[in-house]
Amino acid sequence: MPKTIKIPKATITRLSIYYRQLELLEFDGYRMVSSDKLAWLCQVSPAQVRKDLGYFGEFGVRGVGYDVIDLQAHIKKILTVNRDWNFGIAGIGNLGSALLRHGNFTARGFKCVAVFDNDPNKIGMVMSSGLKIKDIRELNKAVEELDIEIGIITTPPSAAQGAADLFLDAHVNAILNFSPTRISVPDCCLVENIDFTIRLDILTYRLHHEIGL
Amino acid sequence: MPKTIKIPKATITRLSIYYRQLELLEFDGYRMVSSDKLAWLCQVSPAQVRKDLGYFGEFGVRGVGYDVIDLQAHIKKILTVNRDWNFGIAGIGNLGSALLRHGNFTARGFKCVAVFDNDPNKIGMVMSSGLKIKDIRELNKAVEELDIEIGIITTPPSAAQGAADLFLDAHVNAILNFSPTRISVPDCCLVENIDFTIRLDILTYRLHHEIGL
Repeated sequence: MPKTIKIPKATITRLSIYYRQLELLEFDGYRMVSSDKLAWLCQVSPAQVRKDLGYFGEFGVRGVGYDVIDLQAHIKKILTVNRDWNFGIAGIGNLGSALLRHGNFTARGFKCVAVFDNDPNKIGMVMSSGLKIKDIRELNKAVEELDIEIGIITTPPSAAQGAADLFLDAHVNAILNFSPTRISVPDCCLVENIDFTIRLDILTYRLHHEIGL
Repeated sequence: MPKTIKIPKATITRLSIYYRQLELLEFDGYRMVSSDKLAWLCQVSPAQVRKDLGYFGEFGVRGVGYDVIDLQAHIKKILTVNRDWNFGIAGIGNLGSALLRHGNFTARGFKCVAVFDNDPNKIGMVMSSGLKIKDIRELNKAVEELDIEIGIITTPPSAAQGAADLFLDAHVNAILNFSPTRISVPDCCLVENIDFTIRLDILTYRLHHEIGL
């Protein structure tokens, strides 16, 4: 892929979705899949599938489709998930605990190596995963020792920026923010925000326009 | 808007994001915002902002920009969030509890009116919101009595399809699925899946391609 081509973020999101469907197809015993079927499973158009994959090369066989296992390997490489990534979670309330137990992270090579909180009643507690909750003031040290590359923020909104600053100070350049607030980071840092209510907006739009509620 | 135009889902998602930034701008005291600034805040191109809004009419004033309050009202109407929506949550573990406490839902007109579980030790417990956990077998009755229009699934994967079936039986046509599994629903039902790991894939892609890790 020439460096000059900028890949749309929506394409990256869809690659991630294609990958999940390919896994399910493999599980169901499929060796090949047509772009029509993959598109249908992912609720996009076949042209979209071909365009998205076209950014990265020629993967399909005309009239036959894609090799289910090969295409998974290609997408893993494109998404750079063909290796493990260590992450830490700041804020161990209900949401932080839920993420820690979320089976999909480990299955996809994302490994939680440390959890942090500022509540003296929580610090030192051992989670079901075996991790002991660390004092958030130890974040910097833990990042270095445990090679944390991604920071997940599940604090209350008022503590989110403080947690982000601690990750940044420790040179963690990628943050997944679950806290319903805006956090400011320099350009060298990447933030993905997860706002559950955006999905509810999509549902209500569709309920109104597709179902007529 | 003529009925024949199909609005891309990505546009709806961005409208929701524009809306959140407009709220913040209003909070910060802004009356007007240029499409350049709104685009920058939302990390999209100005042309994208104009194109997305263009599906629904002419909202801006050339050379001046958008009225922050008017545009919020227009988008609320488009997204059909200019009224309240009642939802119920099936599965009250850590994630379900976290959602129940998530301040943004209420602020946006999404109101949790019932929570369900199948664990005898949980049924009857009163949550901090004042809701008592109902037996999931009472879901059908509760949907009717409480006018539930959206079902949120936060069960373990093995129970997700069962919960979806209960919502469908009760004529709830919109489901937000947090469980990391595929659920099957008929065409008359809308499902939005939330998979946290997709966002992690985007982060790792960007870490590799933008930052070079």
